[in-house]
Amino acid sequence: MSFEQRVVELGCPVPDPPRPVATYEPSVQVGDLLFISGVIPVREGRPVFRGTLGRDLSGEEGYEAAQVALLNALATIRHAAGSLDRVRRIVRMTGYVASHEGFVEQPAVINGASDLLVRIFGEAGRHARVAVGVVALPMGVPVELELIVQL
Amino acid sequence: MSFEQRVVELGCPVPDPPRPVATYEPSVQVGDLLFISGVIPVREGRPVFRGTLGRDLSGEEGYEAAQVALLNALATIRHAAGSLDRVRRIVRMTGYVASHEGFVEQPAVINGASDLLVRIFGEAGRHARVAVGVVALPMGVPVELELIVQL
Amino acid sequence: MSFEQRVVELGCPVPDPPRPVATYEPSVQVGDLLFISGVIPVREGRPVFRGTLGRDLSGEEGYEAAQVALLNALATIRHAAGSLDRVRRIVRMTGYVASHEGFVEQPAVINGASDLLVRIFGEAGRHARVAVGVVALPMGVPVELELIVQL
Repeated sequence: MSFEQRVVELGCPVPDPPRPVATYEPSVQVGDLLFISGVIPVREGRPVFRGTLGRDLSGEEGYEAAQVALLNALATIRHAAGSLDRVRRIVRMTGYVASHEGFVEQPAVINGASDLLVRIFGEAGRHARVAVGVVALPMGVPVELELIVQL
Repeated sequence: MSFEQRVVELGCPVPDPPRPVATYEPSVQVGDLLFISGVIPVREGRPVFRGTLGRDLSGEEGYEAAQVALLNALATIRHAAGSLDRVRRIVRMTGYVASHEGFVEQPAVINGASDLLVRIFGEAGRHARVAVGVVALPMGVPVELELIVQL
Repeated sequence: MSFEQRVVELGCPVPDPPRPVATYEPSVQVGDLLFISGVIPVREGRPVFRGTLGRDLSGEEGYEAAQVALLNALATIRHAAGSLDRVRRIVRMTGYVASHEGFVEQPAVINGASDLLVRIFGEAGRHARVAVGVVALPMGVPVELELIVQL
């Protein structure tokens, strides 16, 4: 089964590709590496989740926010590569989690994105990963993801 | 017009190359990728801006701080590559913004560096980007930038 | 002297390779680049240091924590590459330091890892580096490191 078929089967609502904003690009390719700009849990430009883990949001909400952010990364990959089927490997993902002092469950939050990557891409979706807790993120969202993908 | 001519025309004061400090390097090249160490808004080793966005500094000051930090990245690129004209593409920039709780305008701050990249390098300056809000940065500066450049 | 001999001579207790947890990998290789997942100062799954710099821990403790985290990165490199002797260059390290407001000595903390890299790998250990202060890290540890290594 292709990766594109897999997202349909899983019912993943991959959105339209993000429009370029400001003076940076949704992604840049060098050789076979695609560097993807930070993605956040927005739909049609509006935050789906806002707030800080350990104060405003539960770990489950953080997990869902990571899923929504990942769908935006998939939209960028599809737009840049033509199709998700061109993914050879998800290389690395850095997950930034807006965290209140004392919240240390960043890995559980970022699993929302990691689990989805493996459900869609199988072995090709198994990535190196970093998860850290930051003070605040653009638009007040709880999660931002940065990915490097091999095409 | 060459990139070197462009920085002259724009009146960008690219400083002398940073001296290596401690046990790391200003940059490391692998293949055609140049990985640049974190740069901050210092001149001659002294911070030009200090403080946290959303408490001590305005968004405009943050924007200017990002510009100053970027000039230090340009100095590193020129030193490593011999000339800014050897830049083929600015691949990715991560912008860390020292942020008080509730400050979520990290993208507007990092635009200070992104806008300057595009003014200098044109299409080659359009990069993938990540912007996040951190608690504190070395020397108390408000912005730190990390870049990957294709030569 | 080989790098493997060097870690023996220095008495560096490189631990067993980390077991894969969750849905990500300790490292992913693309071409000659090895991307290593975030490593923290744990031994046998338990934090060796916990707390925040500038409040709970001294700079020296942070320096030691960075050393312990780096040993876990070495374990991952050895496991992925077969031997530390296959390292051609430590390309870049990002050091995340759990920091209380006003703590700005992140570079001194991350030197714990940088100094060790150069003691083991010599010129091949001189890397590009980023050091930033974050709110919180997984398991409440004070340091997390992310590395890219050329094999």
